[in-house]
Amino acid sequence: MTSLPISFMTDYGLTDEFVGVVKAVLAQIAPQSTVVDITHNVTAFDVRAGSLTLSRAVSYLPDGVVLAVVDPGVGTSRRAIAVRAGDMMLVGPDNGLLAPAVAMLGGATEAVELTNTDFHIESAGATFAGRDIFGPVAAHLATGTQLSEVGTPIDPVTLVPGLMPLTRIEDDGVHAEVLWVDTYGNAQLNVDPEEIAHLGDVLTVRVGTITRTSRRATSFGEIRTGEIGAVTDSYGLIALCMDRQSAARELGLAAGSQVVLDEADRDAGTGGSVGPQSVTIGARPSPPEAN
Amino acid sequence: MTSLPISFMTDYGLTDEFVGVVKAVLAQIAPQSTVVDITHNVTAFDVRAGSLTLSRAVSYLPDGVVLAVVDPGVGTSRRAIAVRAGDMMLVGPDNGLLAPAVAMLGGATEAVELTNTDFHIESAGATFAGRDIFGPVAAHLATGTQLSEVGTPIDPVTLVPGLMPLTRIEDDGVHAEVLWVDTYGNAQLNVDPEEIAHLGDVLTVRVGTITRTSRRATSFGEIRTGEIGAVTDSYGLIALCMDRQSAARELGLAAGSQVVLDEADRDAGTGGSVGPQSVTIGARPSPPEAN
Amino acid sequence: MTSLPISFMTDYGLTDEFVGVVKAVLAQIAPQSTVVDITHNVTAFDVRAGSLTLSRAVSYLPDGVVLAVVDPGVGTSRRAIAVRAGDMMLVGPDNGLLAPAVAMLGGATEAVELTNTDFHIESAGATFAGRDIFGPVAAHLATGTQLSEVGTPIDPVTLVPGLMPLTRIEDDGVHAEVLWVDTYGNAQLNVDPEEIAHLGDVLTVRVGTITRTSRRATSFGEIRTGEIGAVTDSYGLIALCMDRQSAARELGLAAGSQVVLDEADRDAGTGGSVGPQSVTIGARPSPPEAN
Repeated sequence: MTSLPISFMTDYGLTDEFVGVVKAVLAQIAPQSTVVDITHNVTAFDVRAGSLTLSRAVSYLPDGVVLAVVDPGVGTSRRAIAVRAGDMMLVGPDNGLLAPAVAMLGGATEAVELTNTDFHIESAGATFAGRDIFGPVAAHLATGTQLSEVGTPIDPVTLVPGLMPLTRIEDDGVHAEVLWVDTYGNAQLNVDPEEIAHLGDVLTVRVGTITRTSRRATSFGEIRTGEIGAVTDSYGLIALCMDRQSAARELGLAAGSQVVLDEADRDAGTGGSVGPQSVTIGARPSPPEAN
Repeated sequence: MTSLPISFMTDYGLTDEFVGVVKAVLAQIAPQSTVVDITHNVTAFDVRAGSLTLSRAVSYLPDGVVLAVVDPGVGTSRRAIAVRAGDMMLVGPDNGLLAPAVAMLGGATEAVELTNTDFHIESAGATFAGRDIFGPVAAHLATGTQLSEVGTPIDPVTLVPGLMPLTRIEDDGVHAEVLWVDTYGNAQLNVDPEEIAHLGDVLTVRVGTITRTSRRATSFGEIRTGEIGAVTDSYGLIALCMDRQSAARELGLAAGSQVVLDEADRDAGTGGSVGPQSVTIGARPSPPEAN
Repeated sequence: MTSLPISFMTDYGLTDEFVGVVKAVLAQIAPQSTVVDITHNVTAFDVRAGSLTLSRAVSYLPDGVVLAVVDPGVGTSRRAIAVRAGDMMLVGPDNGLLAPAVAMLGGATEAVELTNTDFHIESAGATFAGRDIFGPVAAHLATGTQLSEVGTPIDPVTLVPGLMPLTRIEDDGVHAEVLWVDTYGNAQLNVDPEEIAHLGDVLTVRVGTITRTSRRATSFGEIRTGEIGAVTDSYGLIALCMDRQSAARELGLAAGSQVVLDEADRDAGTGGSVGPQSVTIGARPSPPEAN
């Protein structure tokens, strides 16, 4: 009789009523389900950004259903799917959006293509997939409908994978990529702290023609004004951060930017814009990651 | 003992705490009610935009109470009302905001002016109508208070009507109006597909001095890159759309813009910027309406 | 068995998934609690703005838990606290954010520093205090955990106070300060209507070198087009407002701006840009405060 919580993420934005209408559909079919909005401000059509957002959030979500829609291929032949992974059922397009979260949950143990239109809502015209397919299916799953009822079994190995960029170790350092720039301008890299442990506590950061020194820090509180900190962020990855300033703006970084991390002393004496930045030493409070 | 769901729409925006305070009031009076936020980003003071948003959403809302506030006349003599229509009770200002939704629900069967201040909250100063009148009344209705208790009966025929623009058939085509431009730039017209069925599958679209060709399409997946599609959208109306581009920007359209749809071949040989656009034919995925 | 409502305010914004992840944590620990989002768009790091937002909302919040995070000092030695005041428990940083709300609730009767890590979530890296400390503690308090269990008692007199600017009566008038500019451009002052009752119904408003006349009004409906109204707003404070225009833009006001209110006739004959504005008299509807 209980109804599972539904965690909900889209790129719909909050300007129109799209999110509200899908939530109205959820409220009709699964009135007892709590709906947790992860965010609806994923950059429009940016499947990679959406997949990373979901993967950052997934280990905090309540067991139940995940409804995720970033779907530039709506109306094409991309499949609509539901996947079981761990204690979660994830519903969305088969375009890689769900893949990193599914991987973090231990991989898919069951998957179906959403072919059973009994669980869909008929549209007066073009399909609004969140409202007409993904939303109603997610709500039915939350109320106890089985995965096997909402569609045709498919082999999980056929699901479109998520592409996570890997770091490369080269002679000039660790080649990394920006996964995410948050609203404060912190730039999360695809770098595990252990991958750069051998580089020491003071690093050189190269972005295109810019070279800056960065100090490792375990919290924002340790970053000095004007300095680029290399913080192990709250998701366990290395992020380039500044004290209440945008490191991304300072370094010209966006999601997908290439960054090379190296030992600071390897560059010593090479001239150019190298060497520690002059910093103002003080006890100013540091910026929140997200407070 | 059950408490009805409350669907909530305003033009308050999310910058201030206005929405939150009204929801706090709802949570105090109707703690068991689910609140569905339709949207709070209706353009400030734009009653027509709000009324159209509500009419697009209303058939998806759970039976219960609708609380809608777009109210440029607060503090004037406009009436505060509650209206029964179908299985819904709608609460808001009597300025046309509720009218299209009420019509879609089959018309008002009962209406009251919110004159019973027992169900209002006293303000320390000027009335914040959402917090002090509409919100508390909506919450009381959700918990079982009767419409007749919250105010004085009024004749539904005296309610301010919603003004929906009608199309006009003239010699040069079907004269239509843009009802709504969504966040993706799709421009919904006040045109039912049957109204232009006689024009065929390839249309001429005239906006001011601009003339473009548009192809009818049943889904976004059929629109070619660079082409203007005339799609029957997910609300059953004709919308001018492009493939991951803003048709509204391409054509200079906003809500209220006048558009003429005509047969493509009627313009053949008239010179000017007429004729099909050159298009890149390909299988690129198409944009979501709203995914 | 009941679970208290949780009212939630931050400066996280809605671009990232920060709010969503905290709400997911709340949903896991306190699945029966209703969460009321006050707002998440407090200006980043602006503790004063956040404290004023909370103080405007607090008397409307349902009894239960308040979770408030505007925390520029995360990672420094600022304390994480929970405070009992009236029938509320408030959780957040000890930086003055909670203080005005606590004062409005009659003052703190109990306070603890959140030292019991049994109620925190371990982070993979830097602490995301909303997700890892404040959120989980708030959720546990909502489900019946006692304040004394989540931390070490501290003397309420040691809490960082909120700094509310006081008006000053000088020879040239009442020196006031803008507390808040809302989304409509209404500028709320730290002025109680009684403080300016002796100035009469027509005031002079001085902002830097600008001098304008302002008329007292009890509702927005009384402000004439082009006129600056001095309205007792819905929170019981004087706000400078215009008819569907931004008074803040007209006068160059932002939160913290200094404003002098004086009798209109004291300036008579002093030359300069003094005297009533020419106004268009009419019955145009007035702007909503927040509808």
